[in-house]
Amino acid sequence: MALLGCGVVGSQVIRLMHEQAGDLAARIGAPLELAGVAVRRLGRKRDVEIAPELFTTDAEALVTRDDIDIVVEVIGGIEPARSLIVAALAGGKSVVTANKALLAEDGASLYEAARRGNGDLYFEASVAGAIPLLRPLRESLAGDHVKRVLGIVNGTTNYILDKMDTTGGSFTDALEEAQTLGYAEADPTADIEGFDAAAKAAILAGLAYHSRVTAAEVHREGITEITATDVASAKDMGYVIKLLAICARSDDGRSFGVRVHPAMIPRSHPLAGVREAYNAVFVEAESAGQLMFYGKGAGGAPTASAVLGDLVAVARNRLAGTRGPDESTYADLAVHPMGETVTRCHVALDVADKPGVLARVAELFAKHDVSIQTVRQEGHGDDAQLVIVTHRATDAALSATMEGLRELDIVRAVASLMRVEGDD
Amino acid sequence: MALLGCGVVGSQVIRLMHEQAGDLAARIGAPLELAGVAVRRLGRKRDVEIAPELFTTDAEALVTRDDIDIVVEVIGGIEPARSLIVAALAGGKSVVTANKALLAEDGASLYEAARRGNGDLYFEASVAGAIPLLRPLRESLAGDHVKRVLGIVNGTTNYILDKMDTTGGSFTDALEEAQTLGYAEADPTADIEGFDAAAKAAILAGLAYHSRVTAAEVHREGITEITATDVASAKDMGYVIKLLAICARSDDGRSFGVRVHPAMIPRSHPLAGVREAYNAVFVEAESAGQLMFYGKGAGGAPTASAVLGDLVAVARNRLAGTRGPDESTYADLAVHPMGETVTRCHVALDVADKPGVLARVAELFAKHDVSIQTVRQEGHGDDAQLVIVTHRATDAALSATMEGLRELDIVRAVASLMRVEGDD
Repeated sequence: MALLGCGVVGSQVIRLMHEQAGDLAARIGAPLELAGVAVRRLGRKRDVEIAPELFTTDAEALVTRDDIDIVVEVIGGIEPARSLIVAALAGGKSVVTANKALLAEDGASLYEAARRGNGDLYFEASVAGAIPLLRPLRESLAGDHVKRVLGIVNGTTNYILDKMDTTGGSFTDALEEAQTLGYAEADPTADIEGFDAAAKAAILAGLAYHSRVTAAEVHREGITEITATDVASAKDMGYVIKLLAICARSDDGRSFGVRVHPAMIPRSHPLAGVREAYNAVFVEAESAGQLMFYGKGAGGAPTASAVLGDLVAVARNRLAGTRGPDESTYADLAVHPMGETVTRCHVALDVADKPGVLARVAELFAKHDVSIQTVRQEGHGDDAQLVIVTHRATDAALSATMEGLRELDIVRAVASLMRVEGDD
Repeated sequence: MALLGCGVVGSQVIRLMHEQAGDLAARIGAPLELAGVAVRRLGRKRDVEIAPELFTTDAEALVTRDDIDIVVEVIGGIEPARSLIVAALAGGKSVVTANKALLAEDGASLYEAARRGNGDLYFEASVAGAIPLLRPLRESLAGDHVKRVLGIVNGTTNYILDKMDTTGGSFTDALEEAQTLGYAEADPTADIEGFDAAAKAAILAGLAYHSRVTAAEVHREGITEITATDVASAKDMGYVIKLLAICARSDDGRSFGVRVHPAMIPRSHPLAGVREAYNAVFVEAESAGQLMFYGKGAGGAPTASAVLGDLVAVARNRLAGTRGPDESTYADLAVHPMGETVTRCHVALDVADKPGVLARVAELFAKHDVSIQTVRQEGHGDDAQLVIVTHRATDAALSATMEGLRELDIVRAVASLMRVEGDD
């Protein structure tokens, strides 16, 4: 096999291949041999010992070498990863990758190349790191219907939100701490703006609904606007704010929504207890009921564990002259727009403290067909606030209602606005 | 395919096969056809509609019919299930079973028959019902080393212990409620004495350590002796009592222990939040770190979901002319006796209230090389109690210490004794 990339994950893959050579050979039925490692620059110091002659900067040549039958890609990003993977698959090799961005942008090309080359494409490490999640979705639940997936799939944002919840501090402080501890990168955009989670949501939705989904189809909101007040207000109500990746089938089963946004979930929900940089994915299936998968979503060794699990599987498949499950897109369901997504809202309004305010606000909700579950009036005078939680309504109706509220003269400001999930 | 048994699980399998025929065919690549259902008595009312001509009482004839290539066994128990499965496998068919008792007693014969017949043996539903657990252990973690498995794998006992914890009531009351609600059977022995959990522990340990384990090798203690006082005392200390199935590798990696017994776990442990009849399994692997799998451990539809997932897998394998992963026992590690298991203990002693008591008790612990982590003296006079939590020690040393304590004249009684897990 050949390895593309020798960073945090790649060097752990090599270390584990060395340390567990005997076990891996026994589990596969033949030894795994590392035949080459493609890197950008030679001569760099690595975290792991590798015979220098294995290194090459010519990844293109490596992935088409005749003596290589499995390629592990841990470079990340779109190019050159895509071209290399496609070239490897076209040459009849099997590929193990952790590349969520590529899979969510152009998984179709990779699957197509795998089919033509009659090789395997495995990618357990691309979503939720070490947590066995894609194999259960693709295989264990192959006889069931997934209704909904609610996932905490980005460790950085979960760390930040957990800190804000525990300390009461601001987003900026929590982000800085995450950066100091290495949980967030110097440029944290991909994490805090939800791009990373959106790629994972696209992969999960595709597997759950046997349809093709790209990251561009995922409604995405990040966590940068969340204030200490939002967090405190959620806490007061027995909720906690999490960045969720949500895939949900429509009631008629003909389409589904895919979205990433912060949401309030009840503290009693299994996902509420997911602390620090841990990941967890909650799956609701028609027959299986509620399932949850919990573990480390990132890091060298955990990701390498998932890569090695796939490596054992594709190596076994090659020995048996077979392939793992192919892309399953037979259902070909449409992704519906965010406006059609059914959700609930928590909204805090700074209002004028005079009679008739509640009536006018309630009237506006009714006009947009959004029914109110609870309303609480807090404070007096300039501090008067209405805290409203709605029943389920389409996101379009909820947005129109918020638009209308902002225009009402008696509403001084929408102090906080957050979707509510996980308590229906 | 043929179905053996048409009870709670079997009728759900048939219902789902009907309802999802199109999806299953698309996922497999060919339609699934139900060719026969073996039952004990014909003419009985079933929960699902089936053409009457499909029923037969001649299971032996059914499993060897030429037109059948997959057999699903949901009869349970050792015989006739074993003979039927072995006959089916010997005839080259693939088998999906939920039969934990049989797998834990004689899995070796079944695997052997599968190998000879070149068919598949899948059994995801046998442990933790709908929770995808065996596939992750067998496949996703194939590149990792499992250190420890801590599982709540019996819903009945978890329901009872959860009730005792919530209401403060007795074991008997909680058991009665579980029976009324259908969570416990009229004869609850298999559940409350830990037999069911022990079979599952044997299956989990075998997969985790790539070795052969039978239920007879599992150290087993049930929950019938647990009192409301034990539960309250655990609660006071921030712990909750759960019946755990524990598989743990020895420090030198050369053997492992498998046991089922009630244990105190910290309320902050992810397993502590597993309520009612839910199941969850916590896995610690060297590279992946801590993982948890949570969901419904029993019930017709959840179990049927797991059976159907396996059914799709074995049907795909047959179409591709291949087999799934074989039994993996290459490591061939020994199961060490309970005495060598390293654990911790919480013990409450009713003691004489006089000077020097603590010194004599501490001396006894020291004599057996068991070091004390915390000790708390409570009450006075006839109510005087010492509450001790030990550091890690072998179970043999802990047992010898308890034996010694019972013989000390200053100890009036060992009021409560419980192993402590999950906080190291």
